[in-house]
Formats: sequence, structure tokens, C-alpha cells
Amino acid sequence: MTNPSHAGSLLTVDLAAIVANWRLIAQGVAPAKVAAVVKADAYGLGAARVAPALAAAGCDTFVVATLDEGIALRTVLPEPVIFVLNGPLPGTEGEFLAHALIPVLNSLAQLTGWANFARAGSGAPAAALHIDTGMNRLGIDELELERLAGRPDVLARVRPVLALSHLACADERSHPMNAEQLARFTRLAGQLPAMPMSLAASGGCFLGRAFHFDMVRPGAALYGLNPTPDRPNPMAQVVRLQGKILQVRDVDSPRTVGYGATHRVTGPGRIATVAVGYADGWFRSLGNRGHAMLGGVKVPLVGRVSMDLACFDVSALPPEIAHPGALVDLIGAGQTVDDVAADAGTIGYEILTALGARHHRRWISGEDAA
Amino acid sequence: MTNPSHAGSLLTVDLAAIVANWRLIAQGVAPAKVAAVVKADAYGLGAARVAPALAAAGCDTFVVATLDEGIALRTVLPEPVIFVLNGPLPGTEGEFLAHALIPVLNSLAQLTGWANFARAGSGAPAAALHIDTGMNRLGIDELELERLAGRPDVLARVRPVLALSHLACADERSHPMNAEQLARFTRLAGQLPAMPMSLAASGGCFLGRAFHFDMVRPGAALYGLNPTPDRPNPMAQVVRLQGKILQVRDVDSPRTVGYGATHRVTGPGRIATVAVGYADGWFRSLGNRGHAMLGGVKVPLVGRVSMDLACFDVSALPPEIAHPGALVDLIGAGQTVDDVAADAGTIGYEILTALGARHHRRWISGEDAA
Repeated sequence: MTNPSHAGSLLTVDLAAIVANWRLIAQGVAPAKVAAVVKADAYGLGAARVAPALAAAGCDTFVVATLDEGIALRTVLPEPVIFVLNGPLPGTEGEFLAHALIPVLNSLAQLTGWANFARAGSGAPAAALHIDTGMNRLGIDELELERLAGRPDVLARVRPVLALSHLACADERSHPMNAEQLARFTRLAGQLPAMPMSLAASGGCFLGRAFHFDMVRPGAALYGLNPTPDRPNPMAQVVRLQGKILQVRDVDSPRTVGYGATHRVTGPGRIATVAVGYADGWFRSLGNRGHAMLGGVKVPLVGRVSMDLACFDVSALPPEIAHPGALVDLIGAGQTVDDVAADAGTIGYEILTALGARHHRRWISGEDAA
Repeated sequence: MTNPSHAGSLLTVDLAAIVANWRLIAQGVAPAKVAAVVKADAYGLGAARVAPALAAAGCDTFVVATLDEGIALRTVLPEPVIFVLNGPLPGTEGEFLAHALIPVLNSLAQLTGWANFARAGSGAPAAALHIDTGMNRLGIDELELERLAGRPDVLARVRPVLALSHLACADERSHPMNAEQLARFTRLAGQLPAMPMSLAASGGCFLGRAFHFDMVRPGAALYGLNPTPDRPNPMAQVVRLQGKILQVRDVDSPRTVGYGATHRVTGPGRIATVAVGYADGWFRSLGNRGHAMLGGVKVPLVGRVSMDLACFDVSALPPEIAHPGALVDLIGAGQTVDDVAADAGTIGYEILTALGARHHRRWISGEDAA
């Protein structure tokens, strides 16, 4: 629990922008339906706030990674369909049923476990079948599908409501694996009883109609990450992260800044110390590479990022703007999550899921944004 | 809230090892006292469990970064001294007093704010003074100290109980800044009224008696990170992180593994998919570089780390050991936090503070470790 006047940083999540992003995708893929991926606490943005906002806008299907995430989501979403990607760990099948969660069955072992569990109860419980088409991570592969063909008793005891697969390279429009996985998914799903199908996550939503099938499953795009890295971002920005300046210091050569003395001051200037560090998910790899926005100016991060602090060179700004108590934008209109990820040497997904617990979080709906 | 049977990963924190590390440092620096740094939720290990264990062992002084961390710690530690490194944001001074937290005053502005606040109340409230000796991050610098000398009224209204500073390069024993900062700290503190002094964090505890002054402030070393990177680690290991195998898959060329198809299978083998990903703080930079321990064997992480999953090549192990439901050690006796940090291209501090909320956490005390 954080207090806005105590907190060193403020994280603002625009729920209206998330809803707008969901609608934009829905228009693009109709008549395919759009499930919302809210795993990892809605990519760090708060599933308990994000999911109800999407449900209110008409989203009736949600996707999480783990059983505990599903149980938590069910407490705020009594009605919608909830898929759990990682499927049941042995012995947890009853929990899925108790909370009306649909497991994604990723292997013959999970499928058999679910079938055995089903036999003990009444009625065949719903499940999704994950067909691996080239990730080699989770999913029933071609060999297992052949073995499954010889076990009609297993499939008869589950109620498959969705066949799904994951694209490995959907963010690279021209990657040959996209077409290969599409063909393999169609061929392998054809060996199963007919059921709704789903292949596309955020990237796949923008690969054309052939990839949409009956349902798409965006996550990153809902939260404003660019699902088409080779083209301008079609999604609305969702996140604003502001850090408070604790102190502004006049410096001159030959001083150095921060741990390891990695930044050497070359002349008169001013350094602002901001109350955000790598313990807040402001990656240490941003040391001497990251930026913040202040007064419309992009100011460079200097020295190493500390656990609780980061320093910025604000020499370009007057003291009326760069002063203790002022807020710098770490993520916002002038610097997107994808921009920060590029500076940090990672992807926007990891910047979002790393957002720390000390940020004071607030959720707004567009019109409150000012 | 996580359930151990539902969770994809288990994080075990050995409180007895933390206490042993605190005692080892106490023996080494006596008669200097040893405060425990428990900021950032005790480096991700749970301040509400770590701090009381240390208090029970005799630690009576704790250090956090932010006001909210101080308030939270006060609820579990009614008696001990608690320093708050970032000092008061304007308007929060009353909260410090209400929770008996001692602010570290980092600038003339913070010092003046505290003095003005003190004037309004009765009695001069305790504060620590942070003297910057070369970090140029937070702290009162030489220029400000000179200005302060002309303002005896300001110092008269606070009750300074500690002068502290931070070493920039304490992890490099032979770095010339260590001696420079030591000399500057002694010289600048001499311009203030006499009071207890503190310079050393984990690294400084091992730089020799001259660096210990009246109090040392280890954090990282308490949690098992090596405070002497050029020599064997004198600290006991504290953390064990285990991930559950969800699936084991037979693979052969020409398959690829994971997003971006960055790992190419070169022959028959087996891939285990573990329920830990970068949303759990298992850094994406560990892709094709990280490892896990299983059955005494170091198994390589293959492909990219996903948000919720990571894949390991377990071809070297028989199916009786590498099977769904088995636990791999991601951090433990065979692979320390520092080892993981080296693979990830960062420092152990960031590995600890990034440990995610989905790990099922348990705290043990040595004898329960088996």
C-alpha cells in the first residue's frame, strides 16, 4: 500500500485507453472474438482493475497463466470465461472446477490427468487443447496427437471448447515461421473433433485474416505496446510513470556520479536525483543509457541506476523546472514503454511486468487524464 | 497470495542464515554496531519476516529507503531505531515523527525543512545527516556544508544522531575512491558537531577498521551476496528458488525453441518447460545464457525466456529425474544469486529485488532447511 504524497513515483494506468485498444482490435478481427490476456497481473497494470473495465466494455473471455491468477480473477469477474494457460498441476484439477476456470491442456499427460479427473465427476468439464506448432515450449505435439488418435476414450471424457497455438515470430511480419505455423495448426487441429480455434496473440492480430480463426488473444497490444514493430504503433498509450526529484545538485568536473563512478562530469551542470531505482523495475541496464522527459526536454540518465534512485543530467533546464519535488516522466507521451525497453536492451513486456510495488498506482478513464 | 501446490515456483528464505551473516559482520566490525538494511522489502525477501528475525538476534537499528517502508516496518518492530534514507518529501515530516522514524537529511533544503518543522513542535527531533563524499547522488556536499556553517540556527533546531555517507566503489578493494571518500568524510564531518558516524555498507565492512566508524549498514551481505567479489564469498547462502517442470518434450533437429526461434535443436534430446518467466523476475537477459540445477547437473536455459515460462535442455538427465512436477533449482547451493546475476549481465542486488510475487514464499530457520 502506498500513499501518493509519500511515494517517490506515480504510476497512472489509463483504463479507457486499454478499452480503446481492445475495441480497435475487435474492429480489425471481426467476426473473430477478442479475449483479453491479463496474466502476470495484467502485465503489471493490475488485473483487478483492468479486467472489470474490459468486461464492462463487452469482453467476455479472459486469459491468465496460472491457477492462482485464475482464482483471483474469478473474485472480480463472476461471469466471464477464464482460460488458464499453464494448465493443471497434478492434484489441482478440483480447484479449476470449483472456480469455473478452463484449463489449457498442454500435453498428453495433462489431458489424461484431466480425463481421469473428469471420469470421477459428473459431466465432461470444459478444457482447451494447446497444439504445439513450433514453439516447443508447451503444447501437444504431432507425435502426441497421433498417440491421442488411438485413445478415443480420453478425448470422450473431456469437453474441448478451444484449440489454440502460439506463434513464435508474429512480431516479424515476413518471418517464414508464421505461414508454417499457420499451416501446421490447421492440419493438426483437423485431426481433432471440430472446435473453435485460436492462434493469434497481439502480433498475430495484425498478420491478416487467415491468422484470426475464431478468437484472438491480445495482451501486449491492449497495454499500448507496438504489435507491429516495423510500422508506427496503432495502439493508444496506456501507462504513465512519473518519478519525484529528491534533490538537484550543482556539479563540475572532475566529479563522478553514482556507484562505480561510471559517469564523469565534464563541466558545470546540474544533476537531479529521482526516487526510482532498479528495485522499482527501472532496470539497472538503463545506467548511462536511459532517459526521462522534463519540461518537454529529454534528459539523459547518468551513472548507474541504484536500488532506489537514478540520476539525470538536467543542465539544459532552469531551476524553476528542475527542482526538488518536480515530477519527471519516465514513461509517458514523450517516451513510450517500447522506447524504455530499447534503452534497457529488452522488450516492452518485461518493462511492464517489472513495474515495482512502490509506485503509487492510480487508474483513470481517459477524461480524468489531465 | 500463493498456494504452494498451485504455485509454479517456491522461494525459500533462510532466516537463520541471515542472522548468521549479521553475526559474522558484527564479529568483524566490533565495537562498531551493525544496522540492518531492509529497504526494498529486505531486497525482495520480506522485511516483515527478515527484520523481526534480526531484532530477535539483537539487531536494534534498521535502515529503509522510503517513508512507506518505514511505516510498514514500524508495525512489526515497535522498539528499534529506523532510519529512512530518502528523507522527508515536503509535507511528510509529521509522519516521520508519528511513527518514530529518523529521516536521513540529504540536502540543505531537507535540513531546513526539518528544522522549520521542528520549530513548530516541542523538542528537537532526531535526524541523520548525509554528507556526500563523491556519489553526487544524494547528500549534503562541501558547498552546502559551508553555507550551513553560517546558519547555526538551523543545526540548533535538529538533533543530529548520525552522520553518514556512501562509498561509490567499495566492491573494488583497491579503487582509489575508497581512501579519498574516507578522508573526505572524516574532514567534512569534522565541520559538524560531534556525532556517531557511518560510512560502510556491505562492501565497506570488509575494507578494514578505518571504514567502520561507529556503525556499519550491510544489506546485500546479509542476504548472501558476496561483499568481496575478488575473494571467496564469506557469507552463508540465504535464498533457494525452485521452479516446477510443467512438461518434458522429446525434440530433434530441425526444431527451434521459444519466441524468435533463437535456439536451434541440433539432434535428439529433451526440453523441460519450467513455470518461471521474466514476469517472475527470471530476467529475459538469461535467454540462451542462464542455467538451472537438476539432479546435481547444471542444465542450460535454451531459447528466449517467456513471460511465464523458461525452457531447459535436460537431455543429460533420465526421465526419472527430469519429469513433469519435478523441481529445478534456479537459485540454490549449486547456483548462487551472484552466479545468476553474472549470467544475466547484472548484479545480485537486482536479481533479489526483482523476485516476483508469484513465487510461493516460505521462511525457514536453518534446521527446517532439509
